[in-house]
Amino acid sequence: MSAGLGRRPGPSVRTRVVEYVDDTRREREDTLATEEPLEIRLAWPGAPARSLTVTMRTPGHDFELAAGWLVHDGIATPEQIGAVRYCTDADLDPLEEFNVVTVELSSPPLQLPAARAVSSACGVCGTESIADVLGRTPGSATGSDVRVRLEVIRQLPERLREAQPGFERTGGLHAAGLFGADGNRIVVREDVGRHNAVDKVVGSTILAASGARPAPPDVLVLSGRVGFELVQKAAVSGVAVVAAVGAPSSLAVDLAARAGIGLVGFTRPDRCVVYAGDDRLGV
Amino acid sequence: MSAGLGRRPGPSVRTRVVEYVDDTRREREDTLATEEPLEIRLAWPGAPARSLTVTMRTPGHDFELAAGWLVHDGIATPEQIGAVRYCTDADLDPLEEFNVVTVELSSPPLQLPAARAVSSACGVCGTESIADVLGRTPGSATGSDVRVRLEVIRQLPERLREAQPGFERTGGLHAAGLFGADGNRIVVREDVGRHNAVDKVVGSTILAASGARPAPPDVLVLSGRVGFELVQKAAVSGVAVVAAVGAPSSLAVDLAARAGIGLVGFTRPDRCVVYAGDDRLGV
Repeated sequence: MSAGLGRRPGPSVRTRVVEYVDDTRREREDTLATEEPLEIRLAWPGAPARSLTVTMRTPGHDFELAAGWLVHDGIATPEQIGAVRYCTDADLDPLEEFNVVTVELSSPPLQLPAARAVSSACGVCGTESIADVLGRTPGSATGSDVRVRLEVIRQLPERLREAQPGFERTGGLHAAGLFGADGNRIVVREDVGRHNAVDKVVGSTILAASGARPAPPDVLVLSGRVGFELVQKAAVSGVAVVAAVGAPSSLAVDLAARAGIGLVGFTRPDRCVVYAGDDRLGV
Repeated sequence: MSAGLGRRPGPSVRTRVVEYVDDTRREREDTLATEEPLEIRLAWPGAPARSLTVTMRTPGHDFELAAGWLVHDGIATPEQIGAVRYCTDADLDPLEEFNVVTVELSSPPLQLPAARAVSSACGVCGTESIADVLGRTPGSATGSDVRVRLEVIRQLPERLREAQPGFERTGGLHAAGLFGADGNRIVVREDVGRHNAVDKVVGSTILAASGARPAPPDVLVLSGRVGFELVQKAAVSGVAVVAAVGAPSSLAVDLAARAGIGLVGFTRPDRCVVYAGDDRLGV
C-alpha cells in the first residue's frame, strides 16, 4: 500500500480491495489517494535548520506546500522565501527522502511556532507514524473478535443522516456516529471539523464512564472521507470497524490493516468497498 | 453573523445571503454551521491549569470534544478524565464564556504537547481570531477593486474538476485552484487535505515570483466546504473572491466580510449563493 522503496511517492497508489455489490463478493484493484507525512524545516542566514511542523499531505508539489504554509501561517513573507530542497542526509532511508523539505529564508522569520521535539534523524515516513500510533494504543481493536454483518454496515450512513439535523439546515456539517454491531445507534455528533465530530462521540462515552474505561465501540461511521488522523482516533479508542461514505487515504488503509480495524469506504445500501480487515465483515 | 452577546452559541446561525438563480437576484435568509474557537485547558492535582490548544469547532458537546481530544492525542487515559467545566473568570465577556473549557485529570498527564503562549485573559472568541488575521494581512484584498462576473464564477467548479485527475482516480482528493477574473485557469492542485491544496496553489505563485511579491490572485476555487482557516489563507494572500462547491461556516463568512473578500458557496453553472462581498460580483 505504501510507496515502494526508493521510488518517489506519487499522488495515488494501487491497492487490492473487496467490493460487495448486493450479495456478490468481488476482489479487484482500486486506487487510493496517497497520504504521507511531510516535515517542514526552516533555515535562515546564521541559523541552523529547525523543524517546524509535520503535516499529512498527498506527495507532489511539496516545495509549493512548504512555501504556501509558511506565508499563510505568518512565519515568512513571500519575498523572504529562498531555496527549497528535500533532505539530503547520506544515510537516509529512500522512503523518507521525499518527506522532509527545508526552506531557506533570506532573513529571520517574522515569528516561529512553538518549538517541537526533533529527532536527530532526517526523516519521517508513514511507517513510523503508524508505529507511533500502535505504540500507544493498548486498547486497540486488534484483540477483539467483533464482526459486523455487511447488511448492517451498509445501512449505517442512512441511520447517521437521520440523526444529523445540522446538515439538513446548513449543508456544512460533518458527522460521526458510534453504532453497535447490531446497528444500534449509540451517539451521533456534528461539527464543521470531521476530527472534532469523532472526538465528540468518543468523548461522550468517556464522560459517561465517569472515570472507568468505556467499552470499545463496535462501529464508527463517518459522513465523509477517511484520513490517517481519523483512523488514529479509532485505533486509540479500540473501534472494530470504520465505515465511511467517502474514500480512504493510503495511510488510513495501512494503519487500519496494522491495527486490525475493518475499514469500509463508499458505503451505500446496495454496495460497499472493504479496504482493510475483511475478516471483520460477514455476509 | 456571530452568536449574539450573552447567548450561548448554537450549532447554526441565521444570516442574510444573496442568491443568484440564472440571472435573477434574490435576497433571503440562510443558515450557517457555527464555527468558533475552543480553547482546551488542562489541570491536575497540584498543578495550575494550562492551555493546550485552540481548535475551531461547532459549539455544543464541548466537554465531550475536550475529553475525546485529550485521549485521542495520547495526553490522558479515559480513566484520568475528571470534572470538565467552562471558564468562569468574573470579568469574562459573555461571548467568550463558552469558548474555554478546563479538564481536570485525576493524575499527571501521560505527555504534554509543546507549550503555547497563553494570554492572561480567560477567553478566546471568533472576533479576536478575525482581528488576529486582519492584523497580519497587509496584502489583503480590501484595497483592490477586482470584480468578477457571475457567469464566470459559476463555471469555475467545472473548470477546476477538469484539472483534477486524482479525484477521478481515487474519489479521495480535495482540490484548490487559482483563476483570473476572466476565468483563466492559473494553477490547480490536489491533496487529501483541503488546506494543503490551498497552500500549494499559493505556494506555486510564491516560488514563481522568485523573491518578489506575487500578484494577488483574483479567484480561489475550492472543491469542498469553506472554514475559517481557508478564508484566513485567502486573506493573507490577497484573494479577491473565494468560490466553493460547498457551504461556508459562520466564521468563514465573518472573516470574508471583514477582509473585503467575496465569498460564494454552492457554486453551480445555473446558480450560486453569495455570503459576503456581493459588491465584488457583477451580473
